[in-house]
This record gives sequence, structure tokens and C-alpha cells, in this order.
Amino acid sequence: MKKSDVVHLILGDRLQNPLYSESATAFAPTNIALCKYWGKRDSELNLPNTSSLSISLGDKGATTTLQVKDQADDQVTFNHEKILSSSGFHKRLTAFLDLFRTQKSLHFQINIKANIPLAAGLASSACGFASLVLALDQLFHWQLSLKHLSILARLGSGSAARSITPGFVEWEKGIQDDGMDSYGKLLPETWPDLCVGLLMVNQNEKKISSREAMQRTIDTSLFYPLWPEKVEQDLIHIKKAIHEKDFLLLGKTAESNALTMHGIMLSAWPPISYYLPETISAMQTIWALREQGLALFFTQDAGPNLKLLFLAHDFERIKKCFTTMELVKPFLPRVFNKT
Amino acid sequence: MKKSDVVHLILGDRLQNPLYSESATAFAPTNIALCKYWGKRDSELNLPNTSSLSISLGDKGATTTLQVKDQADDQVTFNHEKILSSSGFHKRLTAFLDLFRTQKSLHFQINIKANIPLAAGLASSACGFASLVLALDQLFHWQLSLKHLSILARLGSGSAARSITPGFVEWEKGIQDDGMDSYGKLLPETWPDLCVGLLMVNQNEKKISSREAMQRTIDTSLFYPLWPEKVEQDLIHIKKAIHEKDFLLLGKTAESNALTMHGIMLSAWPPISYYLPETISAMQTIWALREQGLALFFTQDAGPNLKLLFLAHDFERIKKCFTTMELVKPFLPRVFNKT
Repeated sequence: MKKSDVVHLILGDRLQNPLYSESATAFAPTNIALCKYWGKRDSELNLPNTSSLSISLGDKGATTTLQVKDQADDQVTFNHEKILSSSGFHKRLTAFLDLFRTQKSLHFQINIKANIPLAAGLASSACGFASLVLALDQLFHWQLSLKHLSILARLGSGSAARSITPGFVEWEKGIQDDGMDSYGKLLPETWPDLCVGLLMVNQNEKKISSREAMQRTIDTSLFYPLWPEKVEQDLIHIKKAIHEKDFLLLGKTAESNALTMHGIMLSAWPPISYYLPETISAMQTIWALREQGLALFFTQDAGPNLKLLFLAHDFERIKKCFTTMELVKPFLPRVFNKT
Repeated sequence: MKKSDVVHLILGDRLQNPLYSESATAFAPTNIALCKYWGKRDSELNLPNTSSLSISLGDKGATTTLQVKDQADDQVTFNHEKILSSSGFHKRLTAFLDLFRTQKSLHFQINIKANIPLAAGLASSACGFASLVLALDQLFHWQLSLKHLSILARLGSGSAARSITPGFVEWEKGIQDDGMDSYGKLLPETWPDLCVGLLMVNQNEKKISSREAMQRTIDTSLFYPLWPEKVEQDLIHIKKAIHEKDFLLLGKTAESNALTMHGIMLSAWPPISYYLPETISAMQTIWALREQGLALFFTQDAGPNLKLLFLAHDFERIKKCFTTMELVKPFLPRVFNKT
């Protein structure tokens, strides 16, 4: 099944909607997975091998403005810088927009602003595609459900399925070939004391994309086949932890999930490692603080940066050890009430 | 079954041998596993879950001198420094010697000299116990076979089973409860061009012993159950590589085996990591050199140091990048002809 088939399933006649307005702007938060998405069952539709669970990072994310332009092709800027039409980023965006053009001649000026670095393991493509889908929904006045918005975002980038809303989101893997049962669901719980600390040890673009790393892991690691079992166990624990506000269980499970994902990558060939010396150094500090009794954990995505997990009352103590850490409170009222 | 039962099986009446001489000195090389030993099926007899395969490191290792002393207990020195009788090291040694005392009152002065750091992932206990067994064999004139020497050394420390001879040694896991089929076997092949580069990034004692790390991995990692399958595949490739002098296959398999072992440790809880920032930095340099076409690989044991694997003709180029690296040529004639 092709992406365009899914788009037809969701939009049907609305694909012929006239433009509602000349421009639209939408924000989507980035998200970090507490239980990771690693491996696809369908790489065309970005359908995952496993479910995953994330937390959206409040006001960290991407804002996309779409303007209809009378021009021969799409123009893209990222943080005010023009993106070359020959770049992979540009091609990926325009190919995605092709799915939604009401006529071939319809072209856009796409301005994306993000307050996180690009392709450094902060799910920039997740919030990028989610905000693009939200902007399209406004522009064409589709008024899609969160479910359908999540599915369309997934067609752009898998983890974008989890970036449509703030809060805890579970992306269910689904079993259907068309993926209509594979989308992000907002969990009812909030957790105002929960903090995420962004520890950027390196803001450069990663050398190997998540997409490529996932595929190589599946193709070459003897250990990947056990990953779905690990996820199944971890999801149970994370949902229990969120429900019962059991921070130690949440932290332990999220950290173990991330370490296991990186451990499996080490067993791929050629080996995949997102560790930098600074990553290891930070991990050692975290473990040392934990031995001293501090409830501090981390997670790590396909990049060298760590995301620290802790509760608000420990912030000052942690900030002293990680002076460059950026605090995110995912459930700050001003953020969460936006939905 | 107890260690003393195995000692009786091997030595029988010879356990009552009078002393052959008042002192004996023996050297045993340390060894690094190209396919690792990780996990025990019997922790009393140090019987492994899997076979493993190592290369002995030429003249790097330990020399043990045993002297019979008319004193109330054993005295131990390590590199001329007296070891306290309250230390774990002293207790482990004297408990081992208890297995062989012809009379309770027999005590020893044990002087161990090693040209490798203690407990830093350079198999110091392997060469330590192997040299002690070789010295006992001389002192009591047992004239044991290599097989029996390997089994006795294993009772002291698992990987000591592979440190009785120079060269490539395969330690077969065996299936018997008494472990009489679990010992190191010297492979017939030599490989004079093969080089090992010791890259010591940290000589401190490791925080968590291999023994403890193994057990925690088995107890808590969901991924350990696949380790024996990985070893089985890797052993086939390594033996083929040695037989056919296929260095790329040897290097790739050894590196993947080590990375997988460390990856599985990351999936344990609490997580186990022997990585230091310097370890990661060296790994990155190795991978960058390999991308430039250099046939350079590494292996890593339960410590932060790396052992580089390469062929003699690449030494100069590699030495430029790793100026502190110590070269070992395991098959130097002066070393190998000692057997």
C-alpha cells in the first residue's frame, strides 16, 4: 500500500477542497520516547514493529507556516535560512506535500522554525512533520481528528505520529496493512512535577540517520528479534508508573529501554554507536549521583545527547552538576492548556 | 561438585607427593578473548555457558614464585608490594592454595610479578592463576598434562584455563558436571604477522568485577539468552579466519563479539558499562581509520581499555594515531618457542 492510498482513505473528497486560506501556521511539540520506536514493519507507511510511548516537550518543537505561492516549485526555509532544493530535507518535504496538492501547479512557501537542533536526536523530523500536517489541516480546513492527524504525520516521519499533542502519547503499532490502527493516543494522565533536562553535548547533525540505523540493526543484529519483547515489558511498567506516579519505576524503565536500544545497535555490523566521550561522561555523573540517592535517570535517542528525567524538587541539585542543561517541564499549565 | 573433588580427580595420590623442591617459578601469558567468555553454568567450578577463543599475549603476563616457608600463614607480594591478608586478592589465593596443601601446616611465600595492570580488563587473574598452577606443578613435580593444568587453572579463575600456553587457545565449554571436558586447547595455527596493540586508557582497578558483571547480566538482561547463539556463530568465523589467515573476518568477528558483550551489559539492571570517555574516543578513531581503508579492529574486555587488532605492515600508520599503544606480537619466535 502506498502513502497516497492512505491519504485517500483519510481525506477522500476533501482532497479536492478549495483552499480555506492563503496561509496557515501551526506548532507541534517535539517528543522523546520513554519507550523507543526502533524498527519498521512497513517502511513505506512508517508502520512500527512495536508500540512506543513518549512525552511531548512542552514548547520545544517546530512551527510551520505554509503560504500558497504562485511559483514553479516549493520554497523552504528552516530557521530563516533557505534550504536548497537539491537537499534531502527539501526533497523529503516536497514529496510529502505532493500527497496533498489539489492541483499539480499548487506550490508553497514553507517556513519552519524550530527551537531544537536539526537531526541531533531531538526528534526534529517528528515535530517538523507534525506541525506541517497541522498547518495543512488549517489551510485546507480539513478539521481532522487527532487520530487522522497522527496517521498523516506518521507518513512523513514515524515518530511524528506522537507529536500531535502535548502530554504522554502512546503510539500503538497496530496490525492492519493500511496502518489505520497505528497512531498516537494521548494518555489521560498529567504529571506536573515531571522534568526533562536537555543535555546537549553536541549539536551537529548525526552521521547516521535513525532510518538507516534501524534498518541496519534489523538486518544484522542477532539480538533485534528480542527487542519487541523488551518493549512489551517496558510499556507495561511505564504505563503503570505514569498511572501511579511511581517515578523510580518510570526512570528505571525508560533508562533501561534506551540503553538496550543502544546496546542492540552496538551488536549490528558495521556497529552503530551514538556515544560521544561527553555522552559517557554524563552517564557516569548520572550514575554516581544515583548512587548517592538522587532519583535521576536518562534516556537517549539516535544522537549523542541525553535527556535527563527527574522530579521538580531535585532540579537545583541537578542543575549544579549539569550547568548547561536546559529544563523542560512538559506539563507547565501554559503549555498543556493549548490543546 | 566441589573444587576439591576435581583436584582429587586430577591429582589422586599425587596430592600426597612430597615437595620436589623448596621453590618454583613459572610464567604464564595473559590472554585476550577474540570470542568472549561471559556467563557460567557452574560458578563453583567456573564452568562456562559457552566456549571461547583467545590469543595469549606473548611475554605479557605473570610470573609466580612459590617458596615453602615455615610460617603460620601464606604471605603474598604483588610486584614486590605486600598484599594484606585481609584483602580479597589474598583470600582468593590462599583459598585456592588450600586445595593443594599436602599438610595443613604447609605455607607459602607467593611472589607474583606481572607486566600488566591488575584488574583492568587485561586478564590479570587469568595469567596469575595459570602461573600459580604451573609453579605448583613444578614444586610438587606433578608433571601434569596441558589439559589438567588448564582445568586446575580454571578452578582459580575461568579465563585462566586459556593462559597455560602461548598461541590461539579454544576453551571448550564441555557438558560434564565435573568439568573434565572443559579446558583450553591449543590450536595448531600460528600467525606471525598478527599484532595486538594494548591501548591503556585507564589503569585503575575496575569498579565491578567480571564475576559480578557476568552474574548480573545473566540475572537481569532479557538479551543474555541469545549470547550463546552469538558465540556459536562467531567461533565458527574466528576459527575459519585463523585457518585461512583471513584477517578481515577475524577482526570483524572479534570486534562484533566484544561490542555485543558490552551491549548486553548495557541492557542489564543496574546497567553495566565499562566505557570511559577515552574508550569511546579511541573507538571513534578506529572506525574513522577503518573508513579510510585501514584494516584495524578492536576488542574490549571487562575494563575500559581496548586491544587493537591489526597486521604487522600497518603498525607504523596505526602507531601515529595511537602513540601510547603498546605493541604485542603474540607469535614472536622468542615467545612462541618457549612451549
